[in-house]
Amino acid sequence: MTEVVPLRIVPGESIHLLDQVQLPHEERYLRIATVDALCEAIAALRVRGAPLLGLAGACGMAIAATERGTTDDALRLAATTIAATRPTAVDLPAAVTAALEFALALPEPEREAALWAYAGEYAARRVREDRALAAYGAPLLPAGAAVLTHCNAGALSTGGIGTALGVIRAAWEQGTLAHCYATETRPLLQGARLTAWELARLGIPATLLPDTAAASLLATGRVHAVITGADRIAANGDSANKIGTFQLALAAARHGVPLYIAAPLTTVDFDCPGGATIPIEFRDEREVGGFGATRWAPEGLAAYNPAFDVTPDDLIAAIITERGVARPPLGSALAALRGGATVA
Amino acid sequence: MTEVVPLRIVPGESIHLLDQVQLPHEERYLRIATVDALCEAIAALRVRGAPLLGLAGACGMAIAATERGTTDDALRLAATTIAATRPTAVDLPAAVTAALEFALALPEPEREAALWAYAGEYAARRVREDRALAAYGAPLLPAGAAVLTHCNAGALSTGGIGTALGVIRAAWEQGTLAHCYATETRPLLQGARLTAWELARLGIPATLLPDTAAASLLATGRVHAVITGADRIAANGDSANKIGTFQLALAAARHGVPLYIAAPLTTVDFDCPGGATIPIEFRDEREVGGFGATRWAPEGLAAYNPAFDVTPDDLIAAIITERGVARPPLGSALAALRGGATVA
Repeated sequence: MTEVVPLRIVPGESIHLLDQVQLPHEERYLRIATVDALCEAIAALRVRGAPLLGLAGACGMAIAATERGTTDDALRLAATTIAATRPTAVDLPAAVTAALEFALALPEPEREAALWAYAGEYAARRVREDRALAAYGAPLLPAGAAVLTHCNAGALSTGGIGTALGVIRAAWEQGTLAHCYATETRPLLQGARLTAWELARLGIPATLLPDTAAASLLATGRVHAVITGADRIAANGDSANKIGTFQLALAAARHGVPLYIAAPLTTVDFDCPGGATIPIEFRDEREVGGFGATRWAPEGLAAYNPAFDVTPDDLIAAIITERGVARPPLGSALAALRGGATVA
Repeated sequence: MTEVVPLRIVPGESIHLLDQVQLPHEERYLRIATVDALCEAIAALRVRGAPLLGLAGACGMAIAATERGTTDDALRLAATTIAATRPTAVDLPAAVTAALEFALALPEPEREAALWAYAGEYAARRVREDRALAAYGAPLLPAGAAVLTHCNAGALSTGGIGTALGVIRAAWEQGTLAHCYATETRPLLQGARLTAWELARLGIPATLLPDTAAASLLATGRVHAVITGADRIAANGDSANKIGTFQLALAAARHGVPLYIAAPLTTVDFDCPGGATIPIEFRDEREVGGFGATRWAPEGLAAYNPAFDVTPDDLIAAIITERGVARPPLGSALAALRGGATVA
């Protein structure tokens, strides 16, 4: 099996992005050497997933240094531009801000090389942290487990082995996982297009379901856990993730199935007290009522199209991070993990 | 506004079906003059919706008489064939069986004409009962109400003004309804294709949403009621309806929004004690992972594709019928309505 690499760094030059909009039909890499091209790729979801957006943001600062120079003003402007492309995933602005502050603390002639090195280290950390997270998460699943996941929280969303899908993969490698169910994840179908593609590459027995069928599936008793990623987790544990996660959480709770959120600690926004203050991205209404060139709704209809919803902390059994597992009360558990505690 | 007529009867000859698979792009009627053609149309969902399937079943017995003759054996065979096309909606076998028994009680020479008259009366009853149901349902909505509906429970599903959409239409005509939200309803998108089309024809302000976005919408507080139809209601009130209704019900309950099921009493199966004994139709796995010729999932993936799920009675605020409104405890309330009580 070849690892999925959604982002490759060519230091001092550019990054190569696997264009996720074209998957699963085409595996095409885009060479990105300008801030504008990166911003287009982020806005169009050619690169997506909160942890991978963090990496893309760090890379964006290196690209900016090469493309636009390394003055304070040039770097600050690039940081603002990149961070503004999508509002919900906290990893993106956090990584951009951290890279900016790192660069501004250096003499100007050192900044470009240092930013490329910073991006490379960020990428390496993603790989390490996904494995660490998966090592904490996999033991939560019973032997012979069937799990349900939503959207894509795999290698395509992190650059490592993935968060939710990393746990699933580790459990598969350890022989505890029997089956993975994946929702289609309307409107952009990241479950059907991306997760299904990753599961097929991993050789994990998988079944796709319409988003409407999750409660029905959970009612059968065939699913032992629901695992998803997150785009921003508030300090109290409320978790913003792909639209549809909230109702999966409600269906899981109704049937006594635990919902695990798998995300690196960079996805926790300790400045955000609860879910109500997480900014939610609303996307183009035309994503609803069709897919690509295929339209099924009458033209001109209004659509409600938030990209994310917030699952309240009371519906979450645990948040799995690279430093350990936060269990309820999630707020104090997350704070302890941030403080350096490791919890199994 | 021209009324939507999904099924026209040409007595002694055939029926004309509006091919719902082609909506909203094409409004094309199919002439159906054989039992086989009718069965194909039912299986392919060219005609669908529990009450309209009842009407189609009654028409099917008339078609059978004209096509195949009126011996006991011919009629019995036709009844068995038609009733077996789809398993979940109880109206279909109930209507076919009732038409068969009605015909068998008559001298053979009278049967053909009588069956066409029977089908005509069934159609007229659908129109009357939808209006009666809507008159009971509309007053349940507060002034300025915004409602959320799922799948299609409109004129296209009954031949009258619809059940859930009939209530919505009556409230709109009375000036109490402000807005209607409609889910896309994967995999066959009856919400996006059919309900959106009906709402546009009725001039009702409408917004489409992905199935994943319902809990998010309910969390905003903008929706005052969820109203759906049903395909089979058990004696205790458990209601089988289009896949996805169950998780809508869970999301509505979480936010204190009432879920109303609107269905004629013919949809209540008093022989079925609870939801666990309702037969659920599983459909072609290829309905998942794509739509029509457009495929978005990798080829060869397994899919979980039940057409219906069962919403337990505890999540249902009321069942609205043509004889009145059944409130919890639903079982005894439904039995009272069947017994002839009318309840506002």
